[in-house]
Amino acid sequence: MDLKSKIRVINDFPKPGISFKDITTLLKDPEGYQEMVNELVEAAKEFEFDLVASPEARGFIVGAPVAYAMKKGIIPVSKPGKLPAPAITQPYGLEYGANEVQVHIDAIKPGQKVLIVDDLLATGGTAMAAAKLTESLGGIVAGFLFVSELSALNGRELLKDYKVSTLINYDDVE
Amino acid sequence: MDLKSKIRVINDFPKPGISFKDITTLLKDPEGYQEMVNELVEAAKEFEFDLVASPEARGFIVGAPVAYAMKKGIIPVSKPGKLPAPAITQPYGLEYGANEVQVHIDAIKPGQKVLIVDDLLATGGTAMAAAKLTESLGGIVAGFLFVSELSALNGRELLKDYKVSTLINYDDVE
Repeated sequence: MDLKSKIRVINDFPKPGISFKDITTLLKDPEGYQEMVNELVEAAKEFEFDLVASPEARGFIVGAPVAYAMKKGIIPVSKPGKLPAPAITQPYGLEYGANEVQVHIDAIKPGQKVLIVDDLLATGGTAMAAAKLTESLGGIVAGFLFVSELSALNGRELLKDYKVSTLINYDDVE
Repeated sequence: MDLKSKIRVINDFPKPGISFKDITTLLKDPEGYQEMVNELVEAAKEFEFDLVASPEARGFIVGAPVAYAMKKGIIPVSKPGKLPAPAITQPYGLEYGANEVQVHIDAIKPGQKVLIVDDLLATGGTAMAAAKLTESLGGIVAGFLFVSELSALNGRELLKDYKVSTLINYDDVE
């Protein structure tokens, strides 16, 4: 199955000049969603990890079934103010804007290996923030796994010290 | 396994008087997350449905693996401004505050049966909003499935025209 053909491209969202890769058309398709997760699970087998960490919110739809299928736990990498217990915060420069993400301070035990799973590798800012949070807690970043990648934005350069795997590449300039 | 024992209770979050049920301690536990999803899947087998719909954001971590395990698609019930394509909006009264949720207008085809899956049944406001969105698009609400329920808040009364299933009950008054 060609996963890319099931992803809708929407121009000028969330701002002019951005060509948004809308995976909701893939997610609602039972065969498409099944295939997407199965391919992620196959790719995840190339990493050694104890936990999945996924950024809020689309990352949850992608990372949660991978964690379940591989019998791992999952950690939400959340937007500020969402986590109820003591958390650590990491700022990052988003593709369009700037923001922060948080994880609970007890989310990761020292030495645990964490696979960071999200829908999209753009500039890599969110992914790198999740990695910094992992390492701040003494965890080990096992690597990164994404459904798709906008290679023109060079996120792999930012993540060059880590292993990165993606299913789909978009090589158009954003 | 006693799922309830793995859920952390945090008093006075997000505001004084609310006793927040923090499922992140369950989610990060590999055996706990596996058991939670397996129990949800068993419960989901009592419903006839084509799609899972889950409210942003914790609902995604709960609903996505259920959709995957049962070979269904998943629809995000999103906060305003997140969906890139034309969407319909439903306001609702949250337990603490007021808000809106949205789904894409092409998320559900007329006649499709939708199981609404979320982490918590409190007042039922978000769940009912998701049901209204489903029905606005000509979909059929197959029912509701939650990890836990605050029975003192009477969400089941609001959802009384539908089938509702939950794994865990908290009968303390919020």
